[in-house]
Amino acid sequence: MKYNFPITRTTTPKAKPDPDTLRFGQLFTDHMFIMEYTTGKGWHDGKIVPYAPLQIEPAAAVFHYAQEMFEGLKAYKSKDGRVLLFRPDMNAKRTTSTNERMCIPHLDEELMVEAIKAVVNVDKDWIPEKKGTSLYIRPFIIADEPFLGVRPSDHYLFMVILSPVGPYYEGGLAPTKIFVEDDFVRATPGGTGFAKIGGNYAAGMKSQEKAHEKGYEQVLWLDGVERKYVEEIGTSNAFFKIHDEVITAPLSGTILPGITRDSVINLLKQWGIKVSERRLTIEEVFEAGKQGKLIEMFATGTAAVISPVGELSWKDEKVVINNGEIGELSQKLYDELYGLQIGEVEDTLGWTVQV
Amino acid sequence: MKYNFPITRTTTPKAKPDPDTLRFGQLFTDHMFIMEYTTGKGWHDGKIVPYAPLQIEPAAAVFHYAQEMFEGLKAYKSKDGRVLLFRPDMNAKRTTSTNERMCIPHLDEELMVEAIKAVVNVDKDWIPEKKGTSLYIRPFIIADEPFLGVRPSDHYLFMVILSPVGPYYEGGLAPTKIFVEDDFVRATPGGTGFAKIGGNYAAGMKSQEKAHEKGYEQVLWLDGVERKYVEEIGTSNAFFKIHDEVITAPLSGTILPGITRDSVINLLKQWGIKVSERRLTIEEVFEAGKQGKLIEMFATGTAAVISPVGELSWKDEKVVINNGEIGELSQKLYDELYGLQIGEVEDTLGWTVQV
Repeated sequence: MKYNFPITRTTTPKAKPDPDTLRFGQLFTDHMFIMEYTTGKGWHDGKIVPYAPLQIEPAAAVFHYAQEMFEGLKAYKSKDGRVLLFRPDMNAKRTTSTNERMCIPHLDEELMVEAIKAVVNVDKDWIPEKKGTSLYIRPFIIADEPFLGVRPSDHYLFMVILSPVGPYYEGGLAPTKIFVEDDFVRATPGGTGFAKIGGNYAAGMKSQEKAHEKGYEQVLWLDGVERKYVEEIGTSNAFFKIHDEVITAPLSGTILPGITRDSVINLLKQWGIKVSERRLTIEEVFEAGKQGKLIEMFATGTAAVISPVGELSWKDEKVVINNGEIGELSQKLYDELYGLQIGEVEDTLGWTVQV
Repeated sequence: MKYNFPITRTTTPKAKPDPDTLRFGQLFTDHMFIMEYTTGKGWHDGKIVPYAPLQIEPAAAVFHYAQEMFEGLKAYKSKDGRVLLFRPDMNAKRTTSTNERMCIPHLDEELMVEAIKAVVNVDKDWIPEKKGTSLYIRPFIIADEPFLGVRPSDHYLFMVILSPVGPYYEGGLAPTKIFVEDDFVRATPGGTGFAKIGGNYAAGMKSQEKAHEKGYEQVLWLDGVERKYVEEIGTSNAFFKIHDEVITAPLSGTILPGITRDSVINLLKQWGIKVSERRLTIEEVFEAGKQGKLIEMFATGTAAVISPVGELSWKDEKVVINNGEIGELSQKLYDELYGLQIGEVEDTLGWTVQV
């Protein structure tokens, strides 16, 4: 390893959780990675320390101006005992473009991946092994200089924390009910839709709350300008199989460049299935639904991998997809991706990285 | 007082700063207000304690999903020794609408104002008295429940911190150079433009950086849909005096409902000057500029009160406003508002509140 981060081990290790009752993002492991950035000095003093509260001034920029970003990926333990990450270079690459948009100083991509590997290695006994469970990895950067005023901070923390998790949807790979959001907007050209930042998620909570009140799991976002092109599902990318074409929104600045999204596109191409990154109107989706041509619809994301949609509602219209059951393609994609991630499907694309 | 917040006084008071060298938002007083929210219990345990770092878990929601909001106002000490706030009820009212949008639990407006008054009262000796200086008050709320997952937090902190400040623009009431932002977008209908939240400010930093690189102080934002209507200037509201009409963008969801904005509109009406809250295209502004009808342009905000614009640049066009000097109306508004705030102009509207 090029980097040799000092490690301070905890003297009070916590009990490992029961893998049968694991939920998502509630528990954290014994250690974390932390590194500072100071203007004029760059990123410095990366180290692994016991997971503990931060001491942060109330005036820290992150609390006021939300200068912050995050990433998310998972570590799995394969049956033969290897610890596997899935395409961590893609998280590092996305971090670069997020940071550039948010005026956060560039973080060397190789250093980021090495930091992730180092802290996962220290806490590898925390990786749960039961099917559907994993060790969720949360790299993030916060601006912690204490000042009031709108400008980029002169001090940051880059951290990696780890959380043993159960399935994101407690019901497993079950089709969800989605409703088309006509009022609230997630992203607009010239905004921050492609960046993985807190502000995008905070802005979306109100819409999610509305969806829950109406009895839906998530919302399908439309574009912010014409309000007619489908964009994302909640915090995931959206795919539509219409007749023999699989369609997802193009990466034109309002869409998060999902790693599962990219992996799905690659797999579909490899399998000889027609896949298009193109704008698709909600009218086209409903028209296809009425004609029986909306074969499948699913969301992709790190947390749930593939999340099939069983019902889509828009204004007074409703379309049931694949009889509300998991589609053939959704299942195949889930099996392939999850199989790759846990090391049970042969990795011919070099996507898995061993810690 | 209806509320009686317990006070723990510092045992190590800091030295007061030199009023001649005060900058903006760099120093904080001896005390702060802090109150918790817990789901099922509501807001509880409001108290005044010594200003000190917070102990917050790395997994706290605010660091990942930016569920946070803030307000800003100033306290002045009048010549006869009264401590004055300016329309704090408006900050509390805006907090209510921000919180509603951000799924942050409602904070009683009267309680919020009383909390501000209580902590300002404890640190009233920190209010600088030199012309142009004040005690900047920063109320804010952060979601601090430690969990990963996109949903509203079940625990929050409401805090008020205080900073003795010099003028926001170190040059005083000098006209600024502004450039029209054509690429980046601040807000869009269905988004969060009207809410006072970190995410809006984080998203705007890149554009401000671009403005500075081009030799401008700030940007003029255009609407996110048609990219032709003027919206805000940097983090302030924008006013244009064209011929005998003063125009500012309407509060249609993308504009921050500024308290200085509202005060300016009220004063103009009182003075019999025609003032319109209406959409105004950037073409109309430049056309008026070329015809010599763009009499004045200024930004309004709590930090700088009134900030005149001396030059506006858009693509290859440039318009100099009022010979690059402070306009008559800008000066009159500044004198009136600042005079009210420091208690030297008679307050016939009941805008000032004594602590």
